Amino acid sequence: MKIALAQQNYIIGDFEGNFEKISDAIDQAIQQNTDLILFSELAICGYPPRDFLYFNHFIEQCELIINRICAIAQDRIAVVIGAPSKNPIPDGKDLYNSAYFIENGKVKHITHKTLLPTYDVFDEYRYFESNRTFELVEYKGKKIAITICEDIWDTGETNPLYTVNPVEELAKLQPDFLLNLSASPFNYKQAIKRIEIVSRNASAFNIPIFYCNNTGAQTELIFDGGSLVIDNQGRLIDELPYFRTAQKYYELDVNNTIQIINDIQNSNTKDEMALIHDAIICGIKDYFGKLGLKKAILGLSGGIDSALTLYFAVKALGKQNVLSVLMPSQYSTNHSVDDSLKLVENLDTSYKIIPIKEAFDVLDKILQPHFDGKPFDVTEENMQARIRAIYLMALSNKHGYVLLNTTNKSEAAVGYGTLYGDMCGGLAVLADIYKTQVYDLCRWINRNDEIIPKNIIEKAPSAELRPNQKDSDSLPDYEILDRVLFEYIENIKGPDEIRQILGFEEALIDRILKLVNRAEFKRHQTPPILRISPRAFGSGRRVPIVNKYCQ
Amino acid sequence: MKIALAQQNYIIGDFEGNFEKISDAIDQAIQQNTDLILFSELAICGYPPRDFLYFNHFIEQCELIINRICAIAQDRIAVVIGAPSKNPIPDGKDLYNSAYFIENGKVKHITHKTLLPTYDVFDEYRYFESNRTFELVEYKGKKIAITICEDIWDTGETNPLYTVNPVEELAKLQPDFLLNLSASPFNYKQAIKRIEIVSRNASAFNIPIFYCNNTGAQTELIFDGGSLVIDNQGRLIDELPYFRTAQKYYELDVNNTIQIINDIQNSNTKDEMALIHDAIICGIKDYFGKLGLKKAILGLSGGIDSALTLYFAVKALGKQNVLSVLMPSQYSTNHSVDDSLKLVENLDTSYKIIPIKEAFDVLDKILQPHFDGKPFDVTEENMQARIRAIYLMALSNKHGYVLLNTTNKSEAAVGYGTLYGDMCGGLAVLADIYKTQVYDLCRWINRNDEIIPKNIIEKAPSAELRPNQKDSDSLPDYEILDRVLFEYIENIKGPDEIRQILGFEEALIDRILKLVNRAEFKRHQTPPILRISPRAFGSGRRVPIVNKYCQ
Repeated sequence: MKIALAQQNYIIGDFEGNFEKISDAIDQAIQQNTDLILFSELAICGYPPRDFLYFNHFIEQCELIINRICAIAQDRIAVVIGAPSKNPIPDGKDLYNSAYFIENGKVKHITHKTLLPTYDVFDEYRYFESNRTFELVEYKGKKIAITICEDIWDTGETNPLYTVNPVEELAKLQPDFLLNLSASPFNYKQAIKRIEIVSRNASAFNIPIFYCNNTGAQTELIFDGGSLVIDNQGRLIDELPYFRTAQKYYELDVNNTIQIINDIQNSNTKDEMALIHDAIICGIKDYFGKLGLKKAILGLSGGIDSALTLYFAVKALGKQNVLSVLMPSQYSTNHSVDDSLKLVENLDTSYKIIPIKEAFDVLDKILQPHFDGKPFDVTEENMQARIRAIYLMALSNKHGYVLLNTTNKSEAAVGYGTLYGDMCGGLAVLADIYKTQVYDLCRWINRNDEIIPKNIIEKAPSAELRPNQKDSDSLPDYEILDRVLFEYIENIKGPDEIRQILGFEEALIDRILKLVNRAEFKRHQTPPILRISPRAFGSGRRVPIVNKYCQ
Repeated sequence: MKIALAQQNYIIGDFEGNFEKISDAIDQAIQQNTDLILFSELAICGYPPRDFLYFNHFIEQCELIINRICAIAQDRIAVVIGAPSKNPIPDGKDLYNSAYFIENGKVKHITHKTLLPTYDVFDEYRYFESNRTFELVEYKGKKIAITICEDIWDTGETNPLYTVNPVEELAKLQPDFLLNLSASPFNYKQAIKRIEIVSRNASAFNIPIFYCNNTGAQTELIFDGGSLVIDNQGRLIDELPYFRTAQKYYELDVNNTIQIINDIQNSNTKDEMALIHDAIICGIKDYFGKLGLKKAILGLSGGIDSALTLYFAVKALGKQNVLSVLMPSQYSTNHSVDDSLKLVENLDTSYKIIPIKEAFDVLDKILQPHFDGKPFDVTEENMQARIRAIYLMALSNKHGYVLLNTTNKSEAAVGYGTLYGDMCGGLAVLADIYKTQVYDLCRWINRNDEIIPKNIIEKAPSAELRPNQKDSDSLPDYEILDRVLFEYIENIKGPDEIRQILGFEEALIDRILKLVNRAEFKRHQTPPILRISPRAFGSGRRVPIVNKYCQ
């Protein structure tokens, strides 16, 4: 039996566009005499469709596309593809998250997802009812087990999230092989974990697995692809490339052993820096591409965050599509401009210099009578950041740029940034990357050539909003801060546990947790953040703004 | 048997503060020789605790408070109170949403919530496992059924959200009465619906119900209280007041009939305007109060939205704590300032006038060379809005005000507003209130006296960012717009259905839906929105920014 995996990149709600991609893949597979082609989870509408699923009209569009797929597949190929389906039983949620098995131009079987991830960025029980019955689908003499994403995601821990294991149930029915339709977003740990989990399922139940993931970014979520073919002993037969579409073919013989038919070379690295690097570029590219946008603008401060953001923007959008704006103030050091110019030169991209002193002086003059003689404080610092935002947004509005936000995860965590100032933007490029990781990434990017000027990496971080300001005036060293943040945010450890794990002083930990919990109101208003970690700020971390926990 | 209902207002994660309120209520009930006191859902930690529930430390704090309640209750009173509890079984989620039954100073029984709302603003399956077994608790010769919020929320529709009905299961065990611990947020339809649902359950199963809700606002969610006592024939015996704390006592005799002991008069209106009015005041008051803030600032444009926001701010925080800032531009009409001054006078509150022309002219002069000769457009309009934001945020930072956002729901829906301009603020007061409802509210407020100047209500809405601008230049009339928005947002109708329901032209509807779906990126960055409708923007409506649905 010849099986194809179609790893594709969809747009949510773009029914015509998605259908075109799907039908092209089917046509190609038919030309290759393929018996069955496998697509990813909710391929027809794109994942995650979120509350669009509540619209009956949206579900009907999905059904229409299923009919059109039936019409092109005819008796030439079987198609297994993800789409929502209506729950015929009145009790329970109105929808299932389903895999349609199309044979002879008809829907032969609809398999529903059993395990509905409802944690982190996932909200599936918001929309879907769980499957409770297990059946195989027979096709050309083979018995096929069909699962959807989470159904196979048994991490092997002693504390599973669910009370049922769908693969175990299906294995009892003795399938020849198992299909999995996924929409599994990237994080820098995911590639290794995915192979490990699929592999363990295959060997534990002695069953070959064809695992089809989608690829491309959906606002903040980045899907890396990396679809898998694993044999019944858990051996990796093939892995599709990361962060791009691909279609590959496999022959499953009578003994259920698997041959790769068309070997596309891929250079799938498991290196975390390389993965984060490629993920961010994919995230920027698809945010712009899917919204029909081309050009980005950003403020270049001379610091490492805006430097790295510019590098990513140029990589993702092309140097001709990115404009940097240098906006020195009276507190800016000379090296801020010099270092920025060096970077712009290295990347061969265009820039403008628009100082803010004149604008600041006028605003300050206008507002001083209303400051009641109070001294220079964070007000004046924020005013500078907000004047820069006015400049950037004016150029953005006038010329059709999208402003990129350059905040890193450490700053976002503790609220070290100005709302409506440097926290503006259409997309936050680095806000899931800790400051210490920003340094690591820059060094990784510079591993062969000095792309990001050495001085930008080596100088002490500063917002340059008052004379001789340094980040370390207000914050613990990033080496310390990031370790505490990682325990609190990624590992969800409370204050006592963090003290035990890291051995830092109670007062230091309490101060940091208080900063994090008090900055929730700022994070509520930040742009969507490209997610590269297992726990990013945004829809994957939900905390009430008004609270007194750890503060 | 003497039963007390304690309708209280908690702060999320404020374990000491919440315990103090709870222990005061228990002390008072003991003094009244009460047999049993009933609190609301997750009272100990506050509702909704969201991802704080993932912290083991947070759950342990809850357990410590339970122990302290046991210690004060001793053998003097039984306490039924909501808190999370750990799931002892490794399979499934780690927590239950539970009701602790405390008798003789010990936890006698823990009842778990069966139906976990996971829709709208609710994410309970994100954290909790569902109860699957049904038992009564015996106390002083009575058999008591215990339920938590959603467990009783059978709307009687033919398409229920769940496959089990906990009240039906419990009724089979023949309880003498039923307790319900709720944390059920307000919307302007909720008060009537709540009585109807609890009443239907009582009469259908022939069982008296004591229903205890919490009150007060938690960021965007407003809890109205309105706790209920309903007899076994579904008759309303008592309803606790809305939007404030209360503690009341009831006697349940041997025949399970109920007497009110201390009758507090309440003036619970079911009028939608009055309810929205009181809810918004509660929302502002608790946002400020629970964050330890006192003073609000807002920009007064002369339009109806900022006028209504100022009215609410003064009502909630006191006139001495609210500062209005009038920031006329060269495009402002004279009546903008005059009308605003009249309003400020009516409300006897303070104001400043800081024109923006000088600041605009300087910024425009600085930026013109970078506009490449392109004509005046939305850029210059946005610049004016953003200069006002700089003024307001500078005063906010310098003097410790919180900026109130004045956007209404119609504007938020179609993206009619300037990001980092008039869309700034710590709290969006009106963004769940359509423009047509804003008018209705102002007329309702003026029903006896002209508090909001008539001219503000009667003039045509305008942003006044270019000469002779009117909202109607860019948007359909609000009467039409709001009806389409209501079908799309509240009723979740697709384009064809809206056309059938309203009979408007296809092009008009398509234009509006496109505006809504394209404005998602703006709504992503708006402040938290006080929720007064069954479907507010914010955590109750989750839509991907990058999408091509209906656009």
